[in-house]
Amino acid sequence: MIEEKKGAILILSGPSGCGKSTLLKEVYKDISDYYFSISTTTRAPRTGEQNGVDYFFVTKEEFEKDIKNDDFLEYAKVHDNYYGTSLKPINKALEEGKLVIFDIDVQGHEIVRNKLDSIVTSVFITTPSLKVLEERLNARNTDSSDIIEKRIKNAKGEVEFFQDYDYLIINDNLEIAAKELVCIANITRIKTKLYEKDKIISNWLN
Amino acid sequence: MIEEKKGAILILSGPSGCGKSTLLKEVYKDISDYYFSISTTTRAPRTGEQNGVDYFFVTKEEFEKDIKNDDFLEYAKVHDNYYGTSLKPINKALEEGKLVIFDIDVQGHEIVRNKLDSIVTSVFITTPSLKVLEERLNARNTDSSDIIEKRIKNAKGEVEFFQDYDYLIINDNLEIAAKELVCIANITRIKTKLYEKDKIISNWLN
Repeated sequence: MIEEKKGAILILSGPSGCGKSTLLKEVYKDISDYYFSISTTTRAPRTGEQNGVDYFFVTKEEFEKDIKNDDFLEYAKVHDNYYGTSLKPINKALEEGKLVIFDIDVQGHEIVRNKLDSIVTSVFITTPSLKVLEERLNARNTDSSDIIEKRIKNAKGEVEFFQDYDYLIINDNLEIAAKELVCIANITRIKTKLYEKDKIISNWLN
Repeated sequence: MIEEKKGAILILSGPSGCGKSTLLKEVYKDISDYYFSISTTTRAPRTGEQNGVDYFFVTKEEFEKDIKNDDFLEYAKVHDNYYGTSLKPINKALEEGKLVIFDIDVQGHEIVRNKLDSIVTSVFITTPSLKVLEERLNARNTDSSDIIEKRIKNAKGEVEFFQDYDYLIINDNLEIAAKELVCIANITRIKTKLYEKDKIISNWLN
Protein backbone atom coordinates (compact mmCIF):
# COMPACT_ATOMS: atom_id res chain seq x y z
CA MET A 1 0.00 0.00 0.00
CA ILE A 2 1.10 3.53 -0.73
CA GLU A 3 2.49 5.55 2.19
CA GLU A 4 0.66 8.20 4.13
CA LYS A 5 0.79 11.83 3.09
CA LYS A 6 3.65 13.92 4.45
CA GLY A 7 3.63 17.39 5.92
CA ALA A 8 3.81 20.35 3.58
CA ILE A 9 3.73 24.11 3.76
CA LEU A 10 1.03 26.51 2.62
CA ILE A 11 1.97 30.18 2.46
CA LEU A 12 -0.62 32.93 2.24
CA SER A 13 0.24 36.52 1.46
CA GLY A 14 -1.84 39.50 0.51
CA PRO A 15 -2.69 42.97 1.70
CA SER A 16 -4.36 43.59 5.04
CA GLY A 17 -8.03 43.84 4.08
CA CYS A 18 -7.95 41.14 1.39
CA GLY A 19 -9.92 38.76 3.58
CA LYS A 20 -7.23 36.25 4.50
CA SER A 21 -8.51 35.55 8.03
CA THR A 22 -12.08 34.98 6.85
CA LEU A 23 -10.87 32.62 4.11
CA LEU A 24 -8.63 30.75 6.55
CA LYS A 25 -11.63 30.01 8.76
CA GLU A 26 -13.13 28.07 5.85
CA VAL A 27 -9.90 26.07 5.55
CA TYR A 28 -10.02 25.18 9.24
CA LYS A 29 -13.59 23.91 8.83
CA ASP A 30 -12.40 21.52 6.15
CA ILE A 31 -8.95 20.47 7.37
CA SER A 32 -8.13 19.36 10.89
CA ASP A 33 -4.48 18.38 10.77
CA TYR A 34 -2.92 21.75 10.20
CA TYR A 35 -0.55 23.93 12.20
CA PHE A 36 -0.84 27.70 11.84
CA SER A 37 2.58 29.23 12.35
CA ILE A 38 2.59 31.90 15.05
CA SER A 39 5.41 34.22 16.02
CA THR A 40 7.52 34.17 19.14
CA THR A 41 8.04 37.45 20.98
CA THR A 42 9.62 38.89 24.09
CA ARG A 43 7.06 41.66 24.42
CA ALA A 44 4.46 41.37 27.17
CA PRO A 45 1.05 39.92 26.27
CA ARG A 46 -1.66 42.53 25.79
CA THR A 47 -5.09 42.13 27.37
CA GLY A 48 -6.80 39.07 25.92
CA GLU A 49 -3.70 37.71 24.18
CA GLN A 50 -2.95 34.07 24.86
CA ASN A 51 0.35 32.25 24.84
CA GLY A 52 0.40 29.73 21.98
CA VAL A 53 -2.55 31.40 20.27
CA ASP A 54 -1.57 34.99 19.49
CA TYR A 55 2.15 34.55 20.10
CA PHE A 56 4.58 32.36 21.94
CA PHE A 57 5.56 34.70 24.76
CA VAL A 58 9.11 34.07 26.00
CA THR A 59 11.76 35.88 28.01
CA LYS A 60 14.60 37.79 26.42
CA GLU A 61 17.02 35.12 27.71
CA GLU A 62 15.03 32.29 26.12
CA PHE A 63 14.83 34.19 22.82
CA GLU A 64 18.56 34.91 22.75
CA LYS A 65 19.36 31.29 23.58
CA ASP A 66 17.26 30.20 20.57
CA ILE A 67 19.05 32.74 18.36
CA LYS A 68 22.38 31.16 19.39
CA ASN A 69 20.99 27.69 18.62
CA ASP A 70 20.00 28.88 15.14
CA ASP A 71 16.43 28.11 16.02
CA PHE A 72 14.72 30.93 14.15
CA LEU A 73 13.56 30.96 10.58
CA GLU A 74 13.86 34.74 10.85
CA TYR A 75 13.77 37.28 13.65
CA ALA A 76 13.95 41.02 14.21
CA LYS A 77 14.32 43.40 17.12
CA VAL A 78 11.70 46.15 17.20
CA HIS A 79 11.72 48.79 19.97
CA ASP A 80 13.74 46.61 22.34
CA ASN A 81 11.50 43.58 21.79
CA TYR A 82 12.30 40.52 19.73
CA TYR A 83 9.87 38.99 17.22
CA GLY A 84 10.66 35.82 15.30
CA THR A 85 9.49 32.56 13.80
CA SER A 86 10.69 29.55 15.78
CA LEU A 87 11.65 26.51 13.77
CA LYS A 88 10.84 23.91 16.47
CA PRO A 89 7.01 23.93 16.25
CA ILE A 90 7.19 24.07 12.44
CA ASN A 91 9.50 21.08 12.19
CA LYS A 92 7.42 19.17 14.74
CA ALA A 93 4.22 19.79 12.76
CA LEU A 94 5.89 18.77 9.48
CA GLU A 95 7.13 15.54 11.08
CA GLU A 96 3.59 14.83 12.22
CA GLY A 97 2.44 15.16 8.60
CA LYS A 98 0.52 18.37 9.21
CA LEU A 99 -0.19 21.17 6.80
CA VAL A 100 1.85 24.10 8.09
CA ILE A 101 0.17 27.40 7.25
CA PHE A 102 1.98 30.74 7.17
CA ASP A 103 0.31 34.13 6.90
CA ILE A 104 3.32 36.24 5.93
CA ASP A 105 4.40 39.06 3.63
CA VAL A 106 6.32 38.79 0.38
CA GLN A 107 9.71 38.88 2.14
CA GLY A 108 8.57 36.12 4.50
CA HIS A 109 7.50 34.06 1.49
CA GLU A 110 10.98 34.27 0.04
CA ILE A 111 12.61 33.28 3.34
CA VAL A 112 10.37 30.23 3.83
CA ARG A 113 10.91 29.10 0.22
CA ASN A 114 14.67 29.42 0.52
CA LYS A 115 15.32 28.29 4.08
CA LEU A 116 12.90 25.41 4.59
CA ASP A 117 13.57 22.19 2.77
CA SER A 118 9.88 21.33 2.42
CA ILE A 119 7.32 21.31 -0.35
CA VAL A 120 5.75 24.76 -0.45
CA THR A 121 2.53 25.87 -2.10
CA SER A 122 2.00 29.62 -2.03
CA VAL A 123 -1.05 31.76 -2.62
CA PHE A 124 -1.29 35.48 -3.18
CA ILE A 125 -4.70 36.77 -2.13
CA THR A 126 -5.95 40.17 -3.16
CA THR A 127 -9.00 42.29 -3.78
CA PRO A 128 -10.26 42.87 -7.35
CA SER A 129 -8.60 46.30 -7.31
CA LEU A 130 -6.77 48.81 -5.15
CA LYS A 131 -9.95 50.87 -5.00
CA VAL A 132 -11.89 47.95 -3.49
CA LEU A 133 -9.08 47.45 -0.97
CA GLU A 134 -9.27 51.11 0.08
CA GLU A 135 -13.05 50.85 0.42
CA ARG A 136 -12.80 47.73 2.57
CA LEU A 137 -10.12 49.18 4.84
CA ASN A 138 -12.20 52.34 5.34
CA ALA A 139 -15.41 50.40 5.84
CA ARG A 140 -14.11 48.12 8.56
CA ASN A 141 -13.38 51.21 10.63
CA THR A 142 -10.71 49.59 12.79
CA ASP A 143 -7.62 51.46 11.66
CA SER A 144 -6.58 55.10 11.80
CA SER A 145 -6.13 56.92 8.51
CA ASP A 146 -2.34 56.80 9.04
CA ILE A 147 -2.44 53.02 9.33
CA ILE A 148 -4.74 52.71 6.30
CA GLU A 149 -2.38 54.88 4.26
CA LYS A 150 0.54 52.65 5.27
CA ARG A 151 -1.43 49.48 4.37
CA ILE A 152 -2.29 50.92 0.94
CA LYS A 153 1.35 51.80 0.31
CA ASN A 154 2.44 48.28 1.29
CA ALA A 155 -0.27 46.73 -0.88
CA LYS A 156 0.94 48.69 -3.93
CA GLY A 157 4.47 47.42 -3.34
CA GLU A 158 3.49 43.81 -2.63
CA VAL A 159 1.24 43.27 -5.67
CA GLU A 160 4.39 43.47 -7.82
CA PHE A 161 5.41 40.08 -6.42
CA PHE A 162 2.22 38.09 -7.09
CA GLN A 163 3.86 36.04 -9.80
CA ASP A 164 6.42 34.60 -7.37
CA TYR A 165 3.47 32.65 -5.93
CA ASP A 166 1.82 29.49 -7.24
CA TYR A 167 -1.76 30.74 -7.15
CA LEU A 168 -3.61 34.04 -7.29
CA ILE A 169 -6.94 34.30 -5.49
CA ILE A 170 -8.99 37.38 -6.26
CA ASN A 171 -11.34 37.74 -3.33
CA ASP A 172 -14.28 39.25 -5.18
CA ASN A 173 -16.83 36.59 -4.27
CA LEU A 174 -16.19 35.14 -0.81
CA GLU A 175 -17.74 31.77 -1.62
CA ILE A 176 -15.61 31.24 -4.73
CA ALA A 177 -12.44 32.51 -3.07
CA ALA A 178 -13.01 30.25 -0.04
CA LYS A 179 -13.60 27.24 -2.29
CA GLU A 180 -10.35 27.97 -4.11
CA LEU A 181 -8.33 28.27 -0.92
CA VAL A 182 -9.88 25.13 0.61
CA CYS A 183 -9.03 23.28 -2.62
CA ILE A 184 -5.43 24.45 -2.57
CA ALA A 185 -5.10 23.43 1.09
CA ASN A 186 -6.59 20.02 0.30
CA ILE A 187 -4.27 19.12 -2.51
CA THR A 188 -1.03 20.59 -1.19
CA ARG A 189 -0.24 17.23 0.38
CA ILE A 190 -0.75 15.12 -2.74
CA LYS A 191 2.05 16.74 -4.73
CA THR A 192 4.10 13.93 -6.21
CA LYS A 193 7.33 15.56 -5.01
CA LEU A 194 6.27 14.73 -1.45
CA TYR A 195 6.53 11.02 -2.05
CA GLU A 196 9.69 8.94 -1.95
CA LYS A 197 9.69 7.52 -5.44
CA ASP A 198 11.42 4.17 -4.89
CA LYS A 199 9.46 3.44 -1.73
CA ILE A 200 6.13 4.23 -3.40
CA ILE A 201 6.86 2.11 -6.44
CA SER A 202 8.12 -0.86 -4.44
CA ASN A 203 5.09 -0.63 -2.07
CA TRP A 204 2.72 -0.36 -4.99
CA LEU A 205 4.15 -3.38 -6.78
CA ASN A 206 4.08 -5.64 -3.68
CA MET B 1 -10.37 44.97 -12.18
CA ILE B 2 -8.28 41.86 -12.66
CA GLU B 3 -8.65 40.00 -15.95
CA GLU B 4 -10.66 36.85 -16.51
CA LYS B 5 -9.08 33.43 -16.11
CA LYS B 6 -7.41 31.92 -19.17
CA GLY B 7 -7.58 28.43 -20.54
CA ALA B 8 -5.30 25.78 -19.12
CA ILE B 9 -4.61 22.09 -19.51
CA LEU B 10 -5.33 19.25 -17.11
CA ILE B 11 -3.71 15.91 -17.89
CA LEU B 12 -4.85 12.68 -16.28
CA SER B 13 -2.93 9.45 -16.53
CA GLY B 14 -3.18 6.17 -14.72
CA PRO B 15 -3.77 2.50 -15.37
CA SER B 16 -7.00 1.26 -16.88
CA GLY B 17 -9.03 0.28 -13.84
CA CYS B 18 -7.84 3.14 -11.60
CA GLY B 19 -11.24 4.83 -11.81
CA LYS B 20 -10.42 7.81 -14.04
CA SER B 21 -13.76 7.91 -15.85
CA THR B 22 -15.76 7.75 -12.61
CA LEU B 23 -13.64 10.54 -11.11
CA LEU B 24 -13.98 12.65 -14.27
CA LYS B 25 -17.76 12.51 -13.96
CA GLU B 26 -17.43 14.30 -10.62
CA VAL B 27 -15.32 17.00 -12.29
CA TYR B 28 -17.98 17.52 -14.97
CA LYS B 29 -20.61 17.99 -12.27
CA ASP B 30 -18.57 20.81 -10.78
CA ILE B 31 -17.05 22.50 -13.84
CA SER B 32 -18.95 23.45 -16.96
CA ASP B 33 -16.41 25.26 -19.14
CA TYR B 34 -14.14 22.36 -19.99
CA TYR B 35 -13.19 20.61 -23.21
CA PHE B 36 -12.34 16.92 -23.05
CA SER B 37 -9.82 16.14 -25.77
CA ILE B 38 -10.92 13.34 -28.05
CA SER B 39 -8.95 11.63 -30.80
CA THR B 40 -9.41 11.88 -34.54
CA THR B 41 -9.46 8.64 -36.56
CA THR B 42 -9.98 7.34 -40.06
CA ARG B 43 -11.42 4.04 -38.88
CA ALA B 44 -15.16 3.50 -39.32
CA PRO B 45 -17.42 4.23 -36.31
CA ARG B 46 -18.50 1.11 -34.41
CA THR B 47 -22.12 0.60 -33.40
CA GLY B 48 -23.15 3.31 -30.96
CA GLU B 49 -20.06 5.48 -31.49
CA GLN B 50 -20.78 9.13 -32.21
CA ASN B 51 -18.75 11.65 -34.16
CA GLY B 52 -17.46 14.34 -31.79
CA VAL B 53 -18.14 12.22 -28.73
CA ASP B 54 -16.12 9.03 -29.04
CA TYR B 55 -13.87 10.22 -31.86
CA PHE B 56 -13.76 12.73 -34.65
CA PHE B 57 -14.33 10.44 -37.62
CA VAL B 58 -12.65 11.74 -40.79
CA THR B 59 -11.58 10.41 -44.18
CA LYS B 60 -8.05 9.32 -44.95
CA GLU B 61 -7.69 12.34 -47.25
CA GLU B 62 -8.77 14.78 -44.55
CA PHE B 63 -6.39 13.18 -42.06
CA GLU B 64 -3.44 13.31 -44.44
CA LYS B 65 -4.20 16.94 -45.28
CA ASP B 66 -4.06 17.78 -41.56
CA ILE B 67 -0.77 15.92 -41.22
CA LYS B 68 0.66 18.10 -44.01
CA ASN B 69 -0.65 21.22 -42.26
CA ASP B 70 1.11 20.15 -39.06
CA ASP B 71 -2.25 20.03 -37.37
CA PHE B 72 -1.68 17.07 -35.07
CA LEU B 73 -0.23 17.07 -31.62
CA GLU B 74 0.67 13.46 -32.30
CA TYR B 75 -0.61 10.73 -34.61
CA ALA B 76 0.02 7.09 -35.45
CA LYS B 77 -1.02 4.61 -38.11
CA VAL B 78 -2.37 1.33 -36.72
CA HIS B 79 -3.52 -1.44 -39.08
CA ASP B 80 -4.08 0.93 -42.00
CA ASN B 81 -6.06 3.41 -39.90
CA TYR B 82 -4.83 6.73 -38.57
CA TYR B 83 -5.37 7.87 -34.98
CA GLY B 84 -4.28 11.29 -33.74
CA THR B 85 -4.91 14.33 -31.58
CA SER B 86 -5.98 17.35 -33.62
CA LEU B 87 -4.66 20.70 -32.45
CA LYS B 88 -7.57 22.81 -33.78
CA PRO B 89 -10.23 21.96 -31.16
CA ILE B 90 -7.63 22.18 -28.37
CA ASN B 91 -6.45 25.63 -29.41
CA LYS B 92 -10.03 26.81 -29.87
CA ALA B 93 -10.97 25.66 -26.35
CA LEU B 94 -7.88 27.29 -24.85
CA GLU B 95 -8.70 30.57 -26.60
CA GLU B 96 -12.20 30.38 -25.13
CA GLY B 97 -10.65 30.11 -21.66
CA LYS B 98 -11.74 26.51 -21.16
CA LEU B 99 -10.09 23.82 -19.08
CA VAL B 100 -8.77 21.32 -21.62
CA ILE B 101 -8.73 17.80 -20.17
CA PHE B 102 -6.61 14.97 -21.55
CA ASP B 103 -6.89 11.33 -20.53
CA ILE B 104 -3.60 10.05 -21.90
CA ASP B 105 -0.70 7.74 -21.07
CA VAL B 106 2.76 8.70 -19.81
CA GLN B 107 4.11 9.21 -23.33
CA GLY B 108 1.17 11.46 -24.19
CA HIS B 109 1.84 13.45 -21.03
CA GLU B 110 5.37 14.15 -22.17
CA ILE B 111 4.22 15.19 -25.66
CA VAL B 112 1.59 17.62 -24.35
CA ARG B 113 4.05 19.16 -21.87
CA ASN B 114 6.71 19.64 -24.53
CA LYS B 115 4.63 20.59 -27.55
CA LEU B 116 1.88 22.79 -26.15
CA ASP B 117 2.83 26.23 -24.93
CA SER B 118 0.15 26.28 -22.22
CA ILE B 119 0.03 25.96 -18.46
CA VAL B 120 -0.29 22.27 -17.66
CA THR B 121 -1.35 20.60 -14.43
CA SER B 122 -0.95 16.85 -14.43
CA VAL B 123 -2.32 14.13 -12.21
CA PHE B 124 -1.31 10.52 -11.92
CA ILE B 125 -4.19 8.41 -10.64
CA THR B 126 -3.68 4.92 -9.34
CA THR B 127 -5.04 2.22 -7.08
CA PRO B 128 -3.54 1.68 -3.60
CA SER B 129 -1.58 -1.28 -4.98
CA LEU B 130 -1.06 -3.49 -8.01
CA LYS B 131 -3.01 -6.22 -6.23
CA VAL B 132 -6.07 -3.95 -5.91
CA LEU B 133 -5.74 -3.04 -9.60
CA GLU B 134 -5.73 -6.72 -10.57
CA GLU B 135 -8.77 -7.37 -8.38
CA ARG B 136 -10.67 -4.45 -9.94
CA LEU B 137 -9.85 -5.45 -13.50
CA ASN B 138 -10.95 -9.02 -12.81
CA ALA B 139 -14.09 -7.92 -10.96
CA ARG B 140 -15.42 -5.64 -13.70
CA ASN B 141 -15.49 -8.64 -15.99
CA THR B 142 -15.27 -6.64 -19.21
CA ASP B 143 -11.84 -7.68 -20.48
CA SER B 144 -10.37 -10.98 -21.58
CA SER B 145 -7.50 -12.37 -19.50
CA ASP B 146 -5.10 -11.43 -22.33
CA ILE B 147 -6.21 -7.81 -22.15
CA ILE B 148 -6.03 -7.79 -18.35
CA GLU B 149 -2.49 -9.18 -18.49
CA LYS B 150 -1.52 -6.45 -20.95
CA ARG B 151 -3.08 -3.75 -18.76
CA ILE B 152 -1.20 -5.04 -15.70
CA LYS B 153 2.07 -5.03 -17.62
CA ASN B 154 1.45 -1.45 -18.79
CA ALA B 155 0.51 -0.37 -15.27
CA LYS B 156 3.80 -1.76 -13.89
CA GLY B 157 5.71 0.22 -16.49
CA GLU B 158 3.73 3.45 -16.11
CA VAL B 159 3.91 3.72 -12.31
CA GLU B 160 7.66 4.42 -12.70
CA PHE B 161 6.74 7.82 -14.15
CA PHE B 162 4.37 9.08 -11.44
CA GLN B 163 6.86 11.68 -10.25
CA ASP B 164 6.86 13.44 -13.63
CA TYR B 165 3.32 14.54 -12.68
CA ASP B 166 2.25 17.37 -10.36
CA TYR B 167 -0.16 15.34 -8.22
CA LEU B 168 -0.70 11.74 -7.20
CA ILE B 169 -4.22 10.59 -6.46
CA ILE B 170 -4.56 7.21 -4.81
CA ASN B 171 -8.07 6.07 -5.56
CA ASP B 172 -8.70 4.11 -2.39
CA ASN B 173 -11.76 6.04 -1.23
CA LEU B 174 -13.83 7.30 -4.16
CA GLU B 175 -15.20 10.29 -2.26
CA ILE B 176 -11.77 11.55 -1.21
CA ALA B 177 -10.22 10.89 -4.62
CA ALA B 178 -13.08 12.71 -6.36
CA LYS B 179 -12.75 15.68 -4.02
CA GLU B 180 -9.03 15.85 -4.78
CA LEU B 181 -9.53 15.75 -8.54
CA VAL B 182 -12.34 18.32 -8.45
CA CYS B 183 -10.08 20.58 -6.39
CA ILE B 184 -7.20 20.25 -8.83
CA ALA B 185 -9.53 21.01 -11.75
CA ASN B 186 -10.89 24.05 -9.92
CA ILE B 187 -7.57 25.68 -9.19
CA THR B 188 -5.72 24.88 -12.39
CA ARG B 189 -6.92 28.19 -13.82
CA ILE B 190 -5.75 30.37 -10.95
CA LYS B 191 -2.05 29.59 -11.36
CA THR B 192 -0.23 32.91 -11.31
CA LYS B 193 1.74 31.96 -14.43
CA LEU B 194 -1.52 32.21 -16.40
CA TYR B 195 -1.77 35.93 -15.79
CA GLU B 196 0.04 38.64 -17.73
CA LYS B 197 1.95 40.33 -14.95
CA ASP B 198 2.11 43.92 -16.19
CA LYS B 199 -1.52 43.91 -17.28
CA ILE B 200 -2.72 42.54 -13.95
CA ILE B 201 -0.72 45.03 -11.91
CA SER B 202 -1.75 48.00 -14.00
CA ASN B 203 -5.42 46.89 -13.88
CA TRP B 204 -5.23 46.38 -10.15
CA LEU B 205 -3.72 49.78 -9.46
CA ASN B 206 -6.28 51.66 -11.57
